[in-house]
Amino acid sequence: MSINAANQKAVQKIITSDIYLIGIEENASVLTNFKKNMLLHAGPPFKDGWNSISGPVRGAMIGALLYEGLALDEAEATELLAGGAIDFEPCHHFQAVGPMAGVISYSMPLFVVKNITTGDKAYTTMNEGLGKVLRFGAYDQEVIDHLHWMKNFLAPILKDVLAYTGPIHLSKLINNALQMGDECHNRNRAGTSLLLRQLVPGLLSIDYNLDLIKEVYNFINSNDHFFLNLAMAAAKATMDTIIGFKESTLISAMARNGTEFGIRVAGLGSQWFTAQAEVIKGLFFPGYSQKDANRDLGDSVIAETMGIGGFAMAAALPIVQFVGGTAEDAINYTRQMYEITVAENPTYQIPMLDFRGAPTGIDIREVLQTNILPIINTGIAHKESGIGQIGAGLVTPPLKCFIDAAHAFAKAYNR
Amino acid sequence: MSINAANQKAVQKIITSDIYLIGIEENASVLTNFKKNMLLHAGPPFKDGWNSISGPVRGAMIGALLYEGLALDEAEATELLAGGAIDFEPCHHFQAVGPMAGVISYSMPLFVVKNITTGDKAYTTMNEGLGKVLRFGAYDQEVIDHLHWMKNFLAPILKDVLAYTGPIHLSKLINNALQMGDECHNRNRAGTSLLLRQLVPGLLSIDYNLDLIKEVYNFINSNDHFFLNLAMAAAKATMDTIIGFKESTLISAMARNGTEFGIRVAGLGSQWFTAQAEVIKGLFFPGYSQKDANRDLGDSVIAETMGIGGFAMAAALPIVQFVGGTAEDAINYTRQMYEITVAENPTYQIPMLDFRGAPTGIDIREVLQTNILPIINTGIAHKESGIGQIGAGLVTPPLKCFIDAAHAFAKAYNR
Repeated sequence: MSINAANQKAVQKIITSDIYLIGIEENASVLTNFKKNMLLHAGPPFKDGWNSISGPVRGAMIGALLYEGLALDEAEATELLAGGAIDFEPCHHFQAVGPMAGVISYSMPLFVVKNITTGDKAYTTMNEGLGKVLRFGAYDQEVIDHLHWMKNFLAPILKDVLAYTGPIHLSKLINNALQMGDECHNRNRAGTSLLLRQLVPGLLSIDYNLDLIKEVYNFINSNDHFFLNLAMAAAKATMDTIIGFKESTLISAMARNGTEFGIRVAGLGSQWFTAQAEVIKGLFFPGYSQKDANRDLGDSVIAETMGIGGFAMAAALPIVQFVGGTAEDAINYTRQMYEITVAENPTYQIPMLDFRGAPTGIDIREVLQTNILPIINTGIAHKESGIGQIGAGLVTPPLKCFIDAAHAFAKAYNR
Repeated sequence: MSINAANQKAVQKIITSDIYLIGIEENASVLTNFKKNMLLHAGPPFKDGWNSISGPVRGAMIGALLYEGLALDEAEATELLAGGAIDFEPCHHFQAVGPMAGVISYSMPLFVVKNITTGDKAYTTMNEGLGKVLRFGAYDQEVIDHLHWMKNFLAPILKDVLAYTGPIHLSKLINNALQMGDECHNRNRAGTSLLLRQLVPGLLSIDYNLDLIKEVYNFINSNDHFFLNLAMAAAKATMDTIIGFKESTLISAMARNGTEFGIRVAGLGSQWFTAQAEVIKGLFFPGYSQKDANRDLGDSVIAETMGIGGFAMAAALPIVQFVGGTAEDAINYTRQMYEITVAENPTYQIPMLDFRGAPTGIDIREVLQTNILPIINTGIAHKESGIGQIGAGLVTPPLKCFIDAAHAFAKAYNR
């Protein structure tokens, strides 16, 4: 089979994927091969353990050990983490994704998303909200208490809600959100609104104390990014379908661990091609500037890998007020992405481009030929742990990932 | 004062208006001068009573008498209506607006909206939902029962909800909806979603049977047009501020009664300039065509009068799938409207045009000089009563309204 033919077949797997939120697992321990002394994190594997881990991810890992009761304070946690007592593994190796630091520990509750076309499942944490949160590396008692509230109340309540409402059609919800100014990475107001509309009948029907129901509602309602994790899991359950697709040069995953950016290419299986993650250009919250920024971080770029996020910016013009630039820039970014992708996804439509399908199936050959890098909308984390989000902006993967992947592909397939 | 100076001052009243939903009146009888044997209707006054009233408005009026118990059946209602026992008055003369037939009777509950800049209030009915509804002229028992449910359950519950949540900031909500693909006339999915997000904390907190709360939630959640009436009332409370503004050639109201289209000009007070309403060009639901369509109908064009609706189509590109045309058409309609308006309203921003304010303050002189008529997004009613909506499309006012108004203005001000 030619590469082009392989890519066309592979992208069909993406385009025909139909994704539902099917429930909640109350413990991440259900993930295959997950162990109690293991922490999952965003991005590709760390090359040099604790030494290669940036501030916000370190903070999140410390917080996760405190949350699990595996350490009693920061010092003990750091000793365990730096001393090799804890294994670090990418979420992506466990059918999971997490925003920013992306840390998942053994007893965290997870959303379960299913690709009903293929049976693939994907898992993700519940979005913690804004401000001081684990995913940005905060780990004081307030953060840990909030994680316990999520485990003890949010997760079981949403589990019952989903049992009442039945599966929620994420592919349709994402497309509706694209018609309503979201790109489902950095802008999720519509996605969160539409999700809430589907959850409330369940909240009004399950057998729980009404004060708890209110707490859960107010928590989700106060965070326009709540839907983000679900968009990511939908993308993960979609893109995992092409991992190992022979002779295909399409990207199956992009992810950042805060130190390195990694890509996976369908025909090359589970291998990562990595390089130092870039610095994000964008708008900073008052009091912060570029010098405070961590390098590009998080699994959320799985959205762009599927063709939403930065690839669908033309659907989400209001986002330029958050990441900088003009409406025209946003439209042009989406237009450019058609040059490095092999298909248009009819499931995800861009109103501004007369409902053209989102640019889908990033071909590493096209990236190298056009010198156009995938455009990513993303949040900016403070480089020190515990501070949180300091801005949002645009970034691209390092070119080196694509060059290395192309060489490996040529070697693997003798082309 | 020159006309230009007057228009600039008048449009400032529009632009500085800040609108809140403040509560619910359980009976329309609170409207000043409203009487039990009176029915309010959309649009300008009817020139020849019952004879001049189209099918859907007749149906709504029959339904209103059945609802009030003023008639026991259709025959009795028609006799009262045709025989002069009932007075017909425009909603607009009673600080009110209603979509399509727009019929308001003595005991119907109403939303109350307030312009906190000027103190002006406006009233509107609660949207009945889709399908067989009074505003499209349906009046069978199911329709009447539903109106009673709205009066006995929806209205008191929402009244308590609003007492709990406090006033809801409609101006801000409308602007957020414009950032989310609504134009707040024919597309209200975002407005309805954002409204629901604000209502739910109240629904979860008031002292009512949970089954009733669920009924109310499901009713609103099932109708993406629920927000329409509130957008209309917000526009009414905004535009009423320029009624009688001396020497201004800005339009203070546009409205259709299903037979005639009417406009009011600020400097000419409460006078209407009318002409036969146009036929709407658009997309029809399966089984219907142009020959089934009633002429242009309803007070909802108060949205366009304020600069949203068709004027803000560039914010709501997905609407072209409902009314016809392309995304580019939608953008061009908004661009054109800047040619006949005297200001841009920073309260209502169009992302697609780099957050330019919506085109606001329609100057009848500009309409006549450019020959560009205001563009209106609207639903299409079946011309017979009782059938309902059969499509949606675009329409303009008849040119004659503007010519007549200009002559009257010249005469009134000796210009």
